[in-house]
Amino acid sequence: MTPFPRNAWYVACTPDELADKPLGRQICGQRLVLYRTTDGGPVAALEDFCPHRGAPLSLGTVCEGQLVCGYHGLVMGCDGRPVAMPGQRVKSFPAIRAFPVLERYGFVWVWPGDAALASPEKLPLLPWAESPEWAYGGGLYHIACDYRLMIDNLMDLTHETYVHSTSIGQKEIDEAPCETKFSEHEVTTSRFMQNIKAPPFWQMALRMNGLPADQPVDRWQVCHFTPPSHVMIEVGVALAGRGGIDAPADSKASAIVVDFITPETESSIWYFWGMARHFKPHDASLTTQIREGQGRIFAEDREMLERQQRNLAENPARRLLKLNIDSGGVHSRRMIERLIAAEQAAGSEAGATAREPAAAAH
Amino acid sequence: MTPFPRNAWYVACTPDELADKPLGRQICGQRLVLYRTTDGGPVAALEDFCPHRGAPLSLGTVCEGQLVCGYHGLVMGCDGRPVAMPGQRVKSFPAIRAFPVLERYGFVWVWPGDAALASPEKLPLLPWAESPEWAYGGGLYHIACDYRLMIDNLMDLTHETYVHSTSIGQKEIDEAPCETKFSEHEVTTSRFMQNIKAPPFWQMALRMNGLPADQPVDRWQVCHFTPPSHVMIEVGVALAGRGGIDAPADSKASAIVVDFITPETESSIWYFWGMARHFKPHDASLTTQIREGQGRIFAEDREMLERQQRNLAENPARRLLKLNIDSGGVHSRRMIERLIAAEQAAGSEAGATAREPAAAAH
Amino acid sequence: MTPFPRNAWYVACTPDELADKPLGRQICGQRLVLYRTTDGGPVAALEDFCPHRGAPLSLGTVCEGQLVCGYHGLVMGCDGRPVAMPGQRVKSFPAIRAFPVLERYGFVWVWPGDAALASPEKLPLLPWAESPEWAYGGGLYHIACDYRLMIDNLMDLTHETYVHSTSIGQKEIDEAPCETKFSEHEVTTSRFMQNIKAPPFWQMALRMNGLPADQPVDRWQVCHFTPPSHVMIEVGVALAGRGGIDAPADSKASAIVVDFITPETESSIWYFWGMARHFKPHDASLTTQIREGQGRIFAEDREMLERQQRNLAENPARRLLKLNIDSGGVHSRRMIERLIAAEQAAGSEAGATAREPAAAAH
Repeated sequence: MTPFPRNAWYVACTPDELADKPLGRQICGQRLVLYRTTDGGPVAALEDFCPHRGAPLSLGTVCEGQLVCGYHGLVMGCDGRPVAMPGQRVKSFPAIRAFPVLERYGFVWVWPGDAALASPEKLPLLPWAESPEWAYGGGLYHIACDYRLMIDNLMDLTHETYVHSTSIGQKEIDEAPCETKFSEHEVTTSRFMQNIKAPPFWQMALRMNGLPADQPVDRWQVCHFTPPSHVMIEVGVALAGRGGIDAPADSKASAIVVDFITPETESSIWYFWGMARHFKPHDASLTTQIREGQGRIFAEDREMLERQQRNLAENPARRLLKLNIDSGGVHSRRMIERLIAAEQAAGSEAGATAREPAAAAH
Repeated sequence: MTPFPRNAWYVACTPDELADKPLGRQICGQRLVLYRTTDGGPVAALEDFCPHRGAPLSLGTVCEGQLVCGYHGLVMGCDGRPVAMPGQRVKSFPAIRAFPVLERYGFVWVWPGDAALASPEKLPLLPWAESPEWAYGGGLYHIACDYRLMIDNLMDLTHETYVHSTSIGQKEIDEAPCETKFSEHEVTTSRFMQNIKAPPFWQMALRMNGLPADQPVDRWQVCHFTPPSHVMIEVGVALAGRGGIDAPADSKASAIVVDFITPETESSIWYFWGMARHFKPHDASLTTQIREGQGRIFAEDREMLERQQRNLAENPARRLLKLNIDSGGVHSRRMIERLIAAEQAAGSEAGATAREPAAAAH
Repeated sequence: MTPFPRNAWYVACTPDELADKPLGRQICGQRLVLYRTTDGGPVAALEDFCPHRGAPLSLGTVCEGQLVCGYHGLVMGCDGRPVAMPGQRVKSFPAIRAFPVLERYGFVWVWPGDAALASPEKLPLLPWAESPEWAYGGGLYHIACDYRLMIDNLMDLTHETYVHSTSIGQKEIDEAPCETKFSEHEVTTSRFMQNIKAPPFWQMALRMNGLPADQPVDRWQVCHFTPPSHVMIEVGVALAGRGGIDAPADSKASAIVVDFITPETESSIWYFWGMARHFKPHDASLTTQIREGQGRIFAEDREMLERQQRNLAENPARRLLKLNIDSGGVHSRRMIERLIAAEQAAGSEAGATAREPAAAAH
């Protein structure tokens, strides 16, 4: 049984990854070639498999909007239908699957499942990505773990106290109770800490925002999981007693930790991480500074997650605990399971059943 | 079922690989030790498995014409029968398989199958290798692909236009039709291009041969597949209108691209590549220059073939196209299949059935 | 069927490996975390698996004598029972297995089997390790081979002539007969060589001990195998005719080659090697010199053993020879088989059956 919902938009790459040439990337077990059809034009996503002899199309080139196989020159349309090949009539050539693609919010999104179900309205709404009051910086890590372990990680931030003790972790995270709520489409785990000392990362943020770093603060973490595997975390600190998450902008430093977790295989992910901040949005050097700091912090999770993955793979029968702090991850997994079950019941799991080419949703 | 014909001569190594010590090499799935018995004497090939404790004999040394196991000193004869061991009587020790070996044409050849069927007459005839009018230079690459993918590659040179676009590729290869013929023992695919511009590699060859490089030429490519996995390609350019492949020697630059594709396993090869040229045979620096250039060009195939191999392994049920340009490869594969079927029908597949030692065919 | 006796003390590590932080190490297929509970206090060994979410406890830290999981802060007692966790009541948390541990002779020993059967009296007796008349130096190698191949290696020293020809090997080892004896608890293979030239290593040892290095010597090798996988080899040279192994101390250089072979998996080992010498025990630079020399010599075995392992894995049906020189290894393997069979008959194979936490035997 597939471990991924497929009828969903996943982040496939960032536009810079397509700047020079096609990109080969495996998503939800499917090898894809992603390429920009024309300068400034739409991005296409196809199976990374030339129907002529099985060569990877991602080793090809883009010529006049079409992908040309780098082995024997088959010209492939962005709908997965061969367009031409030197000396050949391609009418009867088999097509390959094309995948719906959208480019928005600074990311390229792909829909690995049934193309007929894809639509732009199903993209998550990311207002911060299109507002001049916010700035974003982020990066990409490849991690050898089940994507659900990363969801667990992000929905239980008590790990910050241990894994990130020198930057964003602090004892008070452990001590403050968290609360998990869920609706049909979202799981939210919240934690509020009053009148504490800001940890190093947030002291820096306060200073950059023109606020004192040595005074007591109220800190918040509100983790939002939405399917298939996105976790947005409202984070921040406000000078103590000014209203916390609801404090006026000149009394706080607030941001959203952005996590798009794209499964590569059952046991590996492409992890698009970043931070959208709601202060000093035009300070590019601050964006760089935060990205580098966050990159160091998020790299600390990698060894833990990869070795946890190995431990679980070696002990498949072993039951784990589901504590209150795990509630966010537990409910997120249940939502994922329901989606997978619904897809299978509907027979719409395109990756396993449909072999016809699907129209690209540009 | 074995994917290789075994009753055939394969190139095992070049003599320089045996200069200092025994060589361990896997051929058609069989681990072998190859060694020169005496200085200037014959080469032997045995299973790389000491019957005492299973040590690899290729870690041993050659002493007075015999291979001495590097673990506990068992002395092995080149017929696979133990000869001596300190403090032991070896009469009743089990023998290991010996494989027929020939050294000719600058290569060491091994016969992985039934030794009773091996004979020097079954070696391919390579007149260029023994003629003073020809010069040869070549190299060895290890590539992680099924040997038949490399045969396909060499029997369809339209890939030069894409994979080798900066050296030997040109658009006219695509545009000129090719013709495939086959007999019981050979498949030939030919392509002739009239009145074209020579690509960079052949411009160099024309210059080296004292001919103008900027004039129109006739170019030819005649690919010859012979079992089990040899591809010899007659290649060259002649000044346009002088007779092409049949032009007099002072109007052309011609050569044979030499490809001995020795399966290591089902999904990897030892690829002995080279070029025998029919001009300036005594110019050693030209030999070096051509070998280095060819080495760079042939390295361009590696990534394509290895990723094609991965794509096909992941999609075993997927049917590929068999176009006219693929005809050479298709017929070569059929010839290989017939040979394997005939070997199995004859019960002569020595690798699977015979466990007696076989006499070496020196 | 398990290939290891489990009700036995294995060397797990040396104390220096625990100096800074917990150590993750796989022993007999079981992943363990080893840590020193307090400065100068006892060492504990637990399953390397946090019962909360399966994180490896070896990425944690030790705090006030308890191991703290580095992911979410579960505090684990050295008996495998969770002690505390921020914001949680751990009474009902499942325990993990604790393994009996002893620290003695300069090594940390672990008992992977049934804790109820562990007792300090079952440790091997190593008088040299606690005597001021002896000095010890050694090291640790990871080798990808079945632990029984290393036992074979050490119980048949004729391999020294071939694998270690430039240091401790010499032709006379091959020529001198060996004798193997065995009791219920030990296998001994002895070889005595009279009136021979000392090989380079022993010439050095003679010189360091104030004896002439260029005179004929009597040399001895007495290999002792004791379960589960320890091999102690009495080695040395005496000036010829002075009594050999029984010569007075001022006429000989003698030592014990120490080999603790700890299986990691079925096909890999942690190999703790060293030499205890009975001369110049206070010469620390001599200890260093011998350790470095022995390290170079023992590294020569690695390629042979790893390739022997690969050969045997690829040829599982092939029978090996059991010559007189192999008798030590053959009887050692039989002793191991009997132990495994007895453990299984007794239903005491704790690794497979018992899931309750076991008390640590500090």
